[in-house]
Amino acid sequence: MSGRETLAGRLLVPASEAGGGGGRPVGAPGAAGAAIDGANRVAVERMAAVRPLLTGVARAGDVIPGLEPGVLLHAGPPIEWQRASGPLRGAVIGALLYEGMAADAAAAEAMVARGEVRLEPCHHHSAVGPMAGVTSPSMTVWVVQDASGGRRAYSNINEGYGKVLRYGAYAPDVLDRLRLLNEEVAPLLGKAIAAGEPLDLRALVGEALHMGDEGHNRNRAGSLLLMRQLGSRIVRAAAGAEQAAAALDYLGGNALAVLNPLMAACKLIADAGHGVAGSTLVSTMARNGTDFGIRVSGLGDRWLTGPSPIPEGLYFPGYGPADANPDIGDSTITETVGLGAFAMAAAPAIVTFVGGRPEEAIAATLEMYEITVSESPHFTIPQLGFRGTPTGIDVRRVVELGITPRINTGIAHREPGVGQVGAGLVRPPMAPFVEALKASAAALGINA
Amino acid sequence: MSGRETLAGRLLVPASEAGGGGGRPVGAPGAAGAAIDGANRVAVERMAAVRPLLTGVARAGDVIPGLEPGVLLHAGPPIEWQRASGPLRGAVIGALLYEGMAADAAAAEAMVARGEVRLEPCHHHSAVGPMAGVTSPSMTVWVVQDASGGRRAYSNINEGYGKVLRYGAYAPDVLDRLRLLNEEVAPLLGKAIAAGEPLDLRALVGEALHMGDEGHNRNRAGSLLLMRQLGSRIVRAAAGAEQAAAALDYLGGNALAVLNPLMAACKLIADAGHGVAGSTLVSTMARNGTDFGIRVSGLGDRWLTGPSPIPEGLYFPGYGPADANPDIGDSTITETVGLGAFAMAAAPAIVTFVGGRPEEAIAATLEMYEITVSESPHFTIPQLGFRGTPTGIDVRRVVELGITPRINTGIAHREPGVGQVGAGLVRPPMAPFVEALKASAAALGINA
Repeated sequence: MSGRETLAGRLLVPASEAGGGGGRPVGAPGAAGAAIDGANRVAVERMAAVRPLLTGVARAGDVIPGLEPGVLLHAGPPIEWQRASGPLRGAVIGALLYEGMAADAAAAEAMVARGEVRLEPCHHHSAVGPMAGVTSPSMTVWVVQDASGGRRAYSNINEGYGKVLRYGAYAPDVLDRLRLLNEEVAPLLGKAIAAGEPLDLRALVGEALHMGDEGHNRNRAGSLLLMRQLGSRIVRAAAGAEQAAAALDYLGGNALAVLNPLMAACKLIADAGHGVAGSTLVSTMARNGTDFGIRVSGLGDRWLTGPSPIPEGLYFPGYGPADANPDIGDSTITETVGLGAFAMAAAPAIVTFVGGRPEEAIAATLEMYEITVSESPHFTIPQLGFRGTPTGIDVRRVVELGITPRINTGIAHREPGVGQVGAGLVRPPMAPFVEALKASAAALGINA
Repeated sequence: MSGRETLAGRLLVPASEAGGGGGRPVGAPGAAGAAIDGANRVAVERMAAVRPLLTGVARAGDVIPGLEPGVLLHAGPPIEWQRASGPLRGAVIGALLYEGMAADAAAAEAMVARGEVRLEPCHHHSAVGPMAGVTSPSMTVWVVQDASGGRRAYSNINEGYGKVLRYGAYAPDVLDRLRLLNEEVAPLLGKAIAAGEPLDLRALVGEALHMGDEGHNRNRAGSLLLMRQLGSRIVRAAAGAEQAAAALDYLGGNALAVLNPLMAACKLIADAGHGVAGSTLVSTMARNGTDFGIRVSGLGDRWLTGPSPIPEGLYFPGYGPADANPDIGDSTITETVGLGAFAMAAAPAIVTFVGGRPEEAIAATLEMYEITVSESPHFTIPQLGFRGTPTGIDVRRVVELGITPRINTGIAHREPGVGQVGAGLVRPPMAPFVEALKASAAALGINA
């Protein structure tokens, strides 16, 4: 089925009426498509108006609304402990050890199983976290604020690649490093930020796309741009040379250092597009390691979910597909606003990390224009004549064209306690988009 | 004329004999083309074997052979003062003021006119300098050494864009900044380098090409990679926070900071290919603001020159083509070894600075494969499936195909004392390549 025969087709404005472009035929009632188009335009305009500024760092429990003692935030849609994947379990265990709430892994698991710990999505608390995304009250988070509206979003501190908490590792050395980053390095970065103008993250990622980043799996340039902006401020804010050197080595040595503040920036942008009545734009995509879930601008706060797939990619030596957990993390917030796989044409060198060939990087971005309603005015791709990245995923187009969003991702080991085993590419399941389409139609009084 | 009718054609191996590829028909004597091909292979293999390491900085007069008091080095082929262009005159005046050898511009010019100052090409002293390239004994230079052979090359400290000595400016603020960079910032960078392993510049520029640099006009990523490698070393080597902050701000604030050490690295690579009997490869391309000149591997130390053309490009506000000096600088050493315009496909965002469209960046690199004999094993272009950059300019191909090398460049004001007015693209004149071809033929006993 296609065109007016399909539900998606009936909700799309026909090309002949849309003034050219990618519209699809619309059935009765003819006004539905135009109304949705209008709502989607409002949503992307609100997204484009956000200018996220990195204003500092803070203790998560002090700034994240509702992050009380006994609450842990995690990536993706809500999930019960019984269904939680290995890397999420590992990260929860690690966070409880980190908080001093449990003496060992068994005790930590038992606490959660007894219901003494409340697991809630980051996304319900103005936060986002890559991979397991587990954020506990005493961790440090980046604070990102919209220059226009004042809204804030938060993300934890990136630990780098490999054996790290967000991939489910929780050995003593993992926790020691986490403590060093959260208690020494990040607070100094916060002081450095506070010592001058806040950092314009929209401008930063725009420049990084011109330097071969895509803002999700490849953030080498962005992390160095962060180092450039903070370098001398760090030196002046530090208690001494060794403290400054550690912070500089963190920014210089972790090519993902900027990912987490960028994700918080993307969260601000995506949230601005949420809540427009009648809009069929995706305002959240996230995975908890078991389920992939979306939220849609016009559908309120409900999640539409399906099983999270296993990525295809390149594995670290000694690991293979049998070790892989299904896809996990809030980092798909980057794709949600037109970065990551959507901006892959800007980052052909990424194929050395996630697999594929450079031509496929161009093809990936070109395909995403098919399912999006606008092109970013802020994020442009030199390789495509400075065309704006595809932005604003329309569930109508996803379903009508049978094209799910592309996602660049890391791969976690399926067992708790191991960590990262690779990186790759993945497509979410179609079911949540179909469900979202039906719900959007129902909200407009149109029956499937 | 083309093919066996031309001199170039008679010196090229015919495609049928060359085992496929871009060879041209060869006339009698049939062995000439093969002998030249063999010599050129030796030359590019020697170039590929060079691994330039940044080992530190030094006072120019202490390390550059023959840079005695009263000698000033300059970019390009040799030139008499009477024929020197405005920006070269301006930089010479500035250097004499900097050295305390003259009290004012008039006195400086008079000294040179009286023959009290000896002007010699950087290239005759194992050195290279961008734009005017003027290097005086008390300036600081980067020291780059070949890990394999121990040879060294030198380049001065980059001052950034705009009103700077290398573009012919010499006002007191220009000289103050030059003094700060040479006497405070650069020595600290030298200490930082000396405090650890030397920096592998070949690896650095290889990575920078994957981050949207081309290694000549666009060195944003490379300069940040330098900052990343030196950041914590600078902090530890500095006398205090302010000194460290100034050095970090220099590396972070000057997107050309890495250009000069890279040029010295390219000089080492190019020189390694020089001096192979029978080779028709270009081992130097350089401009003094009046003449463009080349040297050829098999032709000894003679320069073959022609008039330097005026670049086409983008001008800073308030300036236009009427203000432009003919092309100037040793920075074409980057194109000589397969970087700069030859690697432009890796750097599509450069068109915002030098003009043109991103597609033309790809076309520029593809065209340069036509006139080169190999592809770099170290510098690769993600956009072209990680193909090595075109390396080893063959004067036979340049003349036979009528394709001169492409060059990315800055544009200096034609009057001394002003500075940079833009950036753009340029092609050298054909005459020196024709002359080189004839000389190569003559050396082989073949008459034109």
